[in-house]
Amino acid sequence: MTLLTGPEATLPADWYYDPAHYDRELNAVWYRDWVCVGRHEEIAEPGDYIVAEIGTQRVIVTRDSQGAPKAFHNTCRHRGSALCQTVRGHFPNGRIVCPYHTWTYSLDGDLIATPARLEVGDFRFRDFSLYDVHVDSWGGFLFVNFADVPLTSLRESLGTEADVLDDWPLETLVSAHQEKKSLACNWKVFWENYCECYHCPRLHPELCRVVPLYRKGVLSHADLPDWRPQDDQDDGRPTVAPGLSTWTIDGRSTLPAIEGLDERHRADGMAFASFTASMFVVAHPDYVRSVRMQPLGPEGVQLTIDWLLPPGVREAHADSFGRILGLAQRVIEQDSRACELNQQGLKSIRHRHGVLVPQERTVWEFHEWLRAKLVGSDEAARN
Amino acid sequence: MTLLTGPEATLPADWYYDPAHYDRELNAVWYRDWVCVGRHEEIAEPGDYIVAEIGTQRVIVTRDSQGAPKAFHNTCRHRGSALCQTVRGHFPNGRIVCPYHTWTYSLDGDLIATPARLEVGDFRFRDFSLYDVHVDSWGGFLFVNFADVPLTSLRESLGTEADVLDDWPLETLVSAHQEKKSLACNWKVFWENYCECYHCPRLHPELCRVVPLYRKGVLSHADLPDWRPQDDQDDGRPTVAPGLSTWTIDGRSTLPAIEGLDERHRADGMAFASFTASMFVVAHPDYVRSVRMQPLGPEGVQLTIDWLLPPGVREAHADSFGRILGLAQRVIEQDSRACELNQQGLKSIRHRHGVLVPQERTVWEFHEWLRAKLVGSDEAARN
Amino acid sequence: MTLLTGPEATLPADWYYDPAHYDRELNAVWYRDWVCVGRHEEIAEPGDYIVAEIGTQRVIVTRDSQGAPKAFHNTCRHRGSALCQTVRGHFPNGRIVCPYHTWTYSLDGDLIATPARLEVGDFRFRDFSLYDVHVDSWGGFLFVNFADVPLTSLRESLGTEADVLDDWPLETLVSAHQEKKSLACNWKVFWENYCECYHCPRLHPELCRVVPLYRKGVLSHADLPDWRPQDDQDDGRPTVAPGLSTWTIDGRSTLPAIEGLDERHRADGMAFASFTASMFVVAHPDYVRSVRMQPLGPEGVQLTIDWLLPPGVREAHADSFGRILGLAQRVIEQDSRACELNQQGLKSIRHRHGVLVPQERTVWEFHEWLRAKLVGSDEAARN
Repeated sequence: MTLLTGPEATLPADWYYDPAHYDRELNAVWYRDWVCVGRHEEIAEPGDYIVAEIGTQRVIVTRDSQGAPKAFHNTCRHRGSALCQTVRGHFPNGRIVCPYHTWTYSLDGDLIATPARLEVGDFRFRDFSLYDVHVDSWGGFLFVNFADVPLTSLRESLGTEADVLDDWPLETLVSAHQEKKSLACNWKVFWENYCECYHCPRLHPELCRVVPLYRKGVLSHADLPDWRPQDDQDDGRPTVAPGLSTWTIDGRSTLPAIEGLDERHRADGMAFASFTASMFVVAHPDYVRSVRMQPLGPEGVQLTIDWLLPPGVREAHADSFGRILGLAQRVIEQDSRACELNQQGLKSIRHRHGVLVPQERTVWEFHEWLRAKLVGSDEAARN
Repeated sequence: MTLLTGPEATLPADWYYDPAHYDRELNAVWYRDWVCVGRHEEIAEPGDYIVAEIGTQRVIVTRDSQGAPKAFHNTCRHRGSALCQTVRGHFPNGRIVCPYHTWTYSLDGDLIATPARLEVGDFRFRDFSLYDVHVDSWGGFLFVNFADVPLTSLRESLGTEADVLDDWPLETLVSAHQEKKSLACNWKVFWENYCECYHCPRLHPELCRVVPLYRKGVLSHADLPDWRPQDDQDDGRPTVAPGLSTWTIDGRSTLPAIEGLDERHRADGMAFASFTASMFVVAHPDYVRSVRMQPLGPEGVQLTIDWLLPPGVREAHADSFGRILGLAQRVIEQDSRACELNQQGLKSIRHRHGVLVPQERTVWEFHEWLRAKLVGSDEAARN
Repeated sequence: MTLLTGPEATLPADWYYDPAHYDRELNAVWYRDWVCVGRHEEIAEPGDYIVAEIGTQRVIVTRDSQGAPKAFHNTCRHRGSALCQTVRGHFPNGRIVCPYHTWTYSLDGDLIATPARLEVGDFRFRDFSLYDVHVDSWGGFLFVNFADVPLTSLRESLGTEADVLDDWPLETLVSAHQEKKSLACNWKVFWENYCECYHCPRLHPELCRVVPLYRKGVLSHADLPDWRPQDDQDDGRPTVAPGLSTWTIDGRSTLPAIEGLDERHRADGMAFASFTASMFVVAHPDYVRSVRMQPLGPEGVQLTIDWLLPPGVREAHADSFGRILGLAQRVIEQDSRACELNQQGLKSIRHRHGVLVPQERTVWEFHEWLRAKLVGSDEAARN
């Protein structure tokens, strides 16, 4: 990791609250990129579905009779009624039936029946398939992409970040606990908060006891000027304190270790993977936590946090399980409060942009990523 | 009734939520057409008033000393204060008195007193009459029209639909029960729902038991390909099932029949009249029901439902009366849920417009009516 | 005072609800003029602070180590976080510390510490002082001004209105009671209500018993056509009724008189000073009342009312104190209801503007003042 070599300006302040700019970002990022919307165990059987909300859009994700994930806009092709009335459910008999006029679709989105429709004129069923949305999965996570033709495959878009988690059997894990939280801030404010640890010394005392490096306000030992690698394996990555094993309030856990992790991952106690901007994953020797983000408006965002475990572990270790929730819950609470304050302060008419310090290079990279997305989207719109 | 001969596109999806288009419709329809706002028995005596809300406008409807209905914007000519503070009331002494500075108007809207005003300069009372609104009544229903010069008289605008109800003594009926309901949908979504019965088989099982034709998803036997008139009187109109007499949960009623109905109307058990887009009326042998609609915003509408009876019937038949409410209440509940789902689904970025099937010709006619209104309003604005 | 010599049009109706015009007024008035935000005793000690909300802006007002008032936007120069989380508090140790990344400012707004920041590149503390806001005080009232260079000093802007209160020791008074009230109306509606007494006969019967002139709907005897001064001192100003002494429900008070008032002020029982448009003050022989106004949106305003007394009086005269609140509370309640009705009526599509009567010259002067502000702001924006 290289630090910033001088003060860098942040994004313009009004990008964090202007409704027109928010729409521009919906089109450039959220309706164009792969966005994580859930876990494959949430739709375990053919016909199970979830409905995710991204910006103003609602997307149904289900599983067809072969078990393949499918995604559709939550809109009937007849007169546009929403198809699903709940955020989670099951389509009986492999049929998606519109609650308004009973137009009936297969789990592949093909219109297959229109009961009571009078048969006059040139009606072709094939003209009225559901509006499909690209869907793919990785590590048990379901991603959708609203683009007509996604710019890259899901796996390409995940890039080397996914490799970080190679050692964990993500596919086989299941969500043992889920929490949702709405924050009164722009989505970028939350992602910037995630991107840096400069705020850790003040905001996260409990976390800093578990990960001592964070007391220094950096994400990597390599950020510190006097750092030298201790061996070939040492890239400066953060670890839990000596004697501790995972992220809990006291850094200890009585859950069984996830099988198959190598020695290094067990010793580190933690590994991060960022999938800008819809999810990040924090993997520990005994559990994995994912945090998903979906924008709700220029000044609103919804978080979904899942605690993932091998099947059966929660049930067999109920007492131990309860202890793994507390640290992350506290950190999220602390970050949420900070994000909402950040949002408020951005409204000053004097504040055109802020400034980034050296260890906020990760924030600057996020800003560069976003600026490129906006340029790319504008170019696509012109062509 | 003629069916559509092929799939027809619906109105553009964004006409159902775009605030700018909503304003266009307010000006082209709601501020230009005759709009039903209540019953004449709601303002039984001179000086009685109601205040109706149409779009962003509030209109006072009262009755002058001769008993003629009068309507005014709820705005004082002095500094613009609202005159009425409640949606229903009485102006004592034939005087409309502004609660702010006591400017006092006659029930004809003439400014007749301005207590405590210092008499200097060129103040002419005749310059400050209330902003009047055209008002007329038919069948006991009060209609207002915000246009400077209405395009047609009220009776012309009601057209042949009013003739359907000729047999009912609408003028003499009184509202025995009123309900209001706010729906989270555009006004057109509700009107389209009213326009067709394609949704009846799924949505309205109770109603389909009373009106068996509706099980086929059509509004008229004439819509069915194999239909042939049984006699000269048979135009295919829907009727209640053999042995039933009216719209109640079981199709029966112990209320007295309204006097003067001919045999055909008693046998049919039902008759519809549509006054696009502010009201429809369903008339039965024993009672009449009116449903009024007023837009509250791009995605909101208010319904007012009245159950009308000859004077004294409710009081004399309290038990029987209770039974006539249930079926319509259930149908409205079912339709309301469908309308709100329809509104949600229209927001998909892929959904530009829906499609109409043959028996939705009535929806298509409504769309044609609206398109003509918008063109007419644009032309008027250019001249 | 001169009366209007003929009917004058009010401001255009849409200026009272159009969001774009509201923004224009924020820039022309509220972000350009001196605005009263509180009392100096609210920040008694160095480091005490209040946070005021004006339009979309939040301003911190504090007192530096020398006791001088200082004001800043509630925004950290780093990434824009809000600095203060409460509307009232104390900065310990003379340090303003951002709750997000601990950037630390002096009470003068200088950046003096950035704990844990990695020292790389060209970071100059002097580039990141807090965004300062002009602040000054008069009579113990704190005013802020968001302009880069205020058009006038605070004292110049207060003008001769401030002289009216010369006799009262405003600096030494303290707020014995404060109330806040949000009104659903544009800020101008409330200020217009304050500007005239034409509404008094109807709206304020209790007040009219205390100030008999108000029964005539004027603010000054000089407004009455048949008025002649009784002596050299008589300028027609309103006074409490003979035998009464102050503004309470019965016009009497058992609070001690404020020391140093001359005979005339004791006899009058009341004196008004208007500081358009953020505050007015009503001074009585025994207490002073200030009413501050801050816009919250095109159709919202917040009032803050303070009852001011010499230090210790409230504590020594608790029973008497309670009696001075009632009349003003009732008047404010009556005016608030009238203002909210006025706002509603302004929305009529027929209502382009209202009309002013002779004794509303003060409203007309307010309109002229505002029109000049808007012109001045537009000219400044062009240069």
